[in-house]
Amino acid sequence: MRGVVLHASGDIRVEEREDPRIQEPTDAVIRLSATCVCGSDLWPYRGIEDTDGPSPIGHEYVGIVEEIGDDVRTVQPGQFVVGSFFASDNTCENCRAGYQSACIHRQPIGAEGAQAEFLRVPLADGTLVATPDVPDDDLVPSFLAASDVLGTGWFGAVAAEAGRGTTVAVVGDGAVGLLAVLSAKQLGAERIIAMSRHQPRQQLALEYGATDIVTERGDAGVARIKDMTNGLGAHSVIEAVGTQESMVQAIRCTRPGGHVGYVGVAHGVELDGQLLFWSHAHLHGGPAPVRRFLPELIELIWQRRIEPGKVFDLELPLEDAAAGYQAMDQRKAIKTLLRP
Amino acid sequence: MRGVVLHASGDIRVEEREDPRIQEPTDAVIRLSATCVCGSDLWPYRGIEDTDGPSPIGHEYVGIVEEIGDDVRTVQPGQFVVGSFFASDNTCENCRAGYQSACIHRQPIGAEGAQAEFLRVPLADGTLVATPDVPDDDLVPSFLAASDVLGTGWFGAVAAEAGRGTTVAVVGDGAVGLLAVLSAKQLGAERIIAMSRHQPRQQLALEYGATDIVTERGDAGVARIKDMTNGLGAHSVIEAVGTQESMVQAIRCTRPGGHVGYVGVAHGVELDGQLLFWSHAHLHGGPAPVRRFLPELIELIWQRRIEPGKVFDLELPLEDAAAGYQAMDQRKAIKTLLRP
Repeated sequence: MRGVVLHASGDIRVEEREDPRIQEPTDAVIRLSATCVCGSDLWPYRGIEDTDGPSPIGHEYVGIVEEIGDDVRTVQPGQFVVGSFFASDNTCENCRAGYQSACIHRQPIGAEGAQAEFLRVPLADGTLVATPDVPDDDLVPSFLAASDVLGTGWFGAVAAEAGRGTTVAVVGDGAVGLLAVLSAKQLGAERIIAMSRHQPRQQLALEYGATDIVTERGDAGVARIKDMTNGLGAHSVIEAVGTQESMVQAIRCTRPGGHVGYVGVAHGVELDGQLLFWSHAHLHGGPAPVRRFLPELIELIWQRRIEPGKVFDLELPLEDAAAGYQAMDQRKAIKTLLRP
Repeated sequence: MRGVVLHASGDIRVEEREDPRIQEPTDAVIRLSATCVCGSDLWPYRGIEDTDGPSPIGHEYVGIVEEIGDDVRTVQPGQFVVGSFFASDNTCENCRAGYQSACIHRQPIGAEGAQAEFLRVPLADGTLVATPDVPDDDLVPSFLAASDVLGTGWFGAVAAEAGRGTTVAVVGDGAVGLLAVLSAKQLGAERIIAMSRHQPRQQLALEYGATDIVTERGDAGVARIKDMTNGLGAHSVIEAVGTQESMVQAIRCTRPGGHVGYVGVAHGVELDGQLLFWSHAHLHGGPAPVRRFLPELIELIWQRRIEPGKVFDLELPLEDAAAGYQAMDQRKAIKTLLRP
């Protein structure tokens, strides 16, 4: 089959890779309908995370079940399924607590490389959720978004306790930040402030339910959020970047007793204990347990009540993956969908 | 009046100070029945926090109302009252959210110096809570504990969501850590693991409801907690020290989705973003909003259902404050009560 391989920083190639096959009786193999490039794929692409030698890449996927292992019970060949970036058994104590991304048997999908024609999914019963039927093609991008960026934005909003009557601020205007806006809206937030200085992203944030746009960052951004919230800060702040600046900005934008939901993968973050201590904020986040939310998200998409697929503003054939990475790296695209 | 003054690192003196008087119509002046030395007083005493010149010190107090300003409505001269280390109006949006220690009009009691014969308490209506009657003398130490260390331990337990059926670990065996054990017990925790290597403190932890004692620290301490919790970590971990080591130990002892309640005043803490991100822990804490809990804590003490005053293992006349500081600094006493 054809699949994307990261050879070194900036060196993305589409190559012949071995066809995945059932290795464990709990595996499924799916034929991918669509896959995509994640903001977190840019970390190794940019050389900020080390890569040692050529490695398959990609962890977002939807597709049709091709084959299942002998022990798989909940999905069948022919079904359209959505999974996420960690395979999980969905039965261990961590999974039952809603932390499938901390499953004691978790396996990273990235190691299998989801930017490809086929994908082996371990622990299929605990990982994959089937849609009610094979969806219309125009729904595929939205289901693909549920695989990571929607699930991650949703977790950020849940972790930040965005809900009825709250004022929410979102730090970061990538796909996760934009979908955190959508999630906060769905969860009933009253006021949603998107922090963004890029016009097309501001536009999508407004479509997704943002009530205000703040273009300032850092100290000025914090001051602006305080001005808008009676000097107190937002109830809920979603951090969707993962840098020192964005984490500190998020904490400082939060009122005493408020909540920061952080879902940007931390890179070079060192949080000052005094800042944390005196902020009186709640902090929660990490790699999103997307599996917890998939049934609900699939239902919302199936009923066409949300359209998270709009974050894909570039669609390319899998063969052109390198161009898709480049466009995101240069911020010419929010998110690139790849069709195998 | 007589009052304690910190002149420099290690230099504590009891001196003549000006009698406090009503300055604002919302003030009260109280005659202190008892006051005490806080773990956090040791930071400037040890020179870890700067002091600039002689300054009054102390922020824990109970006593009899001597005089009130014209606008004070809820306490009267002759009543026995408990307050905490920040004066608060108890009416602003932060106070109403339960964060009186982040009151937009908060004033630190430490600046008034509660280790003295008399104390001016600003914002008396929002700060002081009267007991049902003047208590028996043997209850005074317990009410004094409610002023800070009990309220702080209680907030740590609430922030860590210690409750029915939970396994709780407590990092730190000072007065706050010991009273966090008591608080977790009152809140219904099933298993309470006190991390302590000092026999008398272990003993008090057991009296307060600890079910297990762990003497290991750092990596070994984390491994021990994991061993005791099916490899997962505790549901709730209370951090009651404030150092880098204790914060990291607390986070690493927590299971995915679990809660860290941190109440040790942070000194030199820099939290690694990756540790935080992958821990999947909830973090909450800061300076305890003791006022939120005072009515409940006063009721529990009045009914003699808890005895937090046991943490005072040294009682001295106010005049001997220097010896009280020394005993705590050398860990010969858990906590020193001073009688004016």
